[in-house]
Amino acid sequence: MLTEILEQPAAITRTLAALLPASDDVRHLARGRTQVLFAARGSSDNAATYGRYLSEIVAGRAAAHLAPSVATAYRRDVDLRHALVVCLSQSGETAELIETQAWARRCGAATVAITNVARSSLTSGADLALVTEAGPELAVPATKTFTAQLVGMAVLARALTRNAMDLRSAEDLAHVAHAVATVIAHRVDVEPAVRMLAGRPRTLVTSRGLAGAVAAEVALKLEETCLRPVPGLSYADLRHGPIAMVDDRTTALVLAPRDGAVLDGIAGIVPELRARGAAVVTIGGDARVSRSADVALPGPDLPEWLAPIGLAVLGQLVVEGVSRTLGLDPDAPRGLRKITETDPERPS
Amino acid sequence: MLTEILEQPAAITRTLAALLPASDDVRHLARGRTQVLFAARGSSDNAATYGRYLSEIVAGRAAAHLAPSVATAYRRDVDLRHALVVCLSQSGETAELIETQAWARRCGAATVAITNVARSSLTSGADLALVTEAGPELAVPATKTFTAQLVGMAVLARALTRNAMDLRSAEDLAHVAHAVATVIAHRVDVEPAVRMLAGRPRTLVTSRGLAGAVAAEVALKLEETCLRPVPGLSYADLRHGPIAMVDDRTTALVLAPRDGAVLDGIAGIVPELRARGAAVVTIGGDARVSRSADVALPGPDLPEWLAPIGLAVLGQLVVEGVSRTLGLDPDAPRGLRKITETDPERPS
Repeated sequence: MLTEILEQPAAITRTLAALLPASDDVRHLARGRTQVLFAARGSSDNAATYGRYLSEIVAGRAAAHLAPSVATAYRRDVDLRHALVVCLSQSGETAELIETQAWARRCGAATVAITNVARSSLTSGADLALVTEAGPELAVPATKTFTAQLVGMAVLARALTRNAMDLRSAEDLAHVAHAVATVIAHRVDVEPAVRMLAGRPRTLVTSRGLAGAVAAEVALKLEETCLRPVPGLSYADLRHGPIAMVDDRTTALVLAPRDGAVLDGIAGIVPELRARGAAVVTIGGDARVSRSADVALPGPDLPEWLAPIGLAVLGQLVVEGVSRTLGLDPDAPRGLRKITETDPERPS
Repeated sequence: MLTEILEQPAAITRTLAALLPASDDVRHLARGRTQVLFAARGSSDNAATYGRYLSEIVAGRAAAHLAPSVATAYRRDVDLRHALVVCLSQSGETAELIETQAWARRCGAATVAITNVARSSLTSGADLALVTEAGPELAVPATKTFTAQLVGMAVLARALTRNAMDLRSAEDLAHVAHAVATVIAHRVDVEPAVRMLAGRPRTLVTSRGLAGAVAAEVALKLEETCLRPVPGLSYADLRHGPIAMVDDRTTALVLAPRDGAVLDGIAGIVPELRARGAAVVTIGGDARVSRSADVALPGPDLPEWLAPIGLAVLGQLVVEGVSRTLGLDPDAPRGLRKITETDPERPS
């Protein structure tokens, strides 16, 4: 897992070079489609959530998640003639996603497949394939394929934006690999965060908006590699009930971009979590966020719309460290395989 | 909480009588709208998930969830001229939902508000208000207002169905209050399930498809009233990572309808959870499901599309019992109030 975390600057550079030339194809395919719908599972589904928010916030295009069971179990057709459907699968061989993509086409959608494997079943069934260039991933927990998917989401959203060719966003994208390399160069900085998370029996991860997808992903990675239940949810959903369980057995990990519309709200949840007895580790945010934390990690040098990519890498470094500190093997979580079959006994 | 659980047959009967006459108004408002989008928080959001699946599976109308932060924090407009937007709030006074509904109208959507309070801010800002008749709810955890919302979702989906007036679905709906009364009359049956859930330190709740919303709701209620993290997710999402943390410290609660397209898959997860060391409590399902469980509770006498309402009531009885067995007060979870403000410091 650590080896693959460290490969990410190169994986991001290769993926951008591979995907940016497809921007016109995306724009062409999306013409007349008022909505972008995403389908995926596991880490890919968290990347999809980032894409869903980017589509609305950056591109101004309505977006949401599909429910695969409607396609694969209930086999119910709906009208998707207004939709661009984006399916994400690292391997491109997840039976459930191949079936969902075929259903979406039958329902009238234009389809984009995002995989890390060229000539997979998912790419060959799509109107357009965006193949990320993370290289083969051996550890079970997705790291470099996940950030490559995030890059894919950013390229997709930029292509869907009306004024897509503005120089600012091109400069932002070109800076991502460097910002991630800087995060990795300073990886020793995560140690105090690792100790604090390993030191209490309960963990939760929160954020909001564009970075919310990374909170869900870091929580999923903690569940897989540390074998404990970890809620990963927006502070809005946290306040609507789950916050009741926060106490002095809890370390809360709070992820924040350095700017943007949700920063004030994220800053506001930190003292509230501490007042309930939690130790709070923050990653990113501004001086207000760091000042109120027990341990504050600096965030990536990226604007809000791309910050999730850098926050994801910081989260991976923290997760890998916590798993090892707890005496576990982050590379091969108990009883998981690289490709999951949702319904292993059903002929696909 | 228990008092309000027991009031549900009457609440359901009153709510059906109040909402069924609005079916034509729903149909009229939804004309030409190819998609139904839902917005809510907490328990209401779980009711919305049931509505989202019903809209697609029963009514054949594309459906998904909105992300309130796009409306309230990012204030980004998108094209919702194809959408019917349904906002759910027990009180009708959740600032975030009022703002999201106003945004949806501005974006071209037709809007339906579902509340338990007539003449609230949410109802007065909607094109159509569906007011449930659960009566005032005093306990912090939603019970009768939640099942009333589920009834609202069923009425909505039936109204959106092309052949909405078929006798079969009317008979199904008319039977719900009786099925729930039967569940309540046999409430002593939940005791073995309560003991098994209280006896191990970890809990997870799973199901899939239409009943998946109830798995999420029962998990949320367990978090609020038992003050422990409880994953509540489809078995598909469970297999994609979180299943790694299941072991002999875990009791898994599995919810199943008695029939339908996801029953086979739900039956398949029970032995897998037991093989990982979990004790498994099932509610509902067929003989295969009960035979492979450690404790099997019979489900409600309802077809799959309405089974979630009965499963929710069984889940509430279990949650209430577990909370009391653990020496906690289910009526007033630590540090929660009846109406939650997502951003308490922001002027709304």
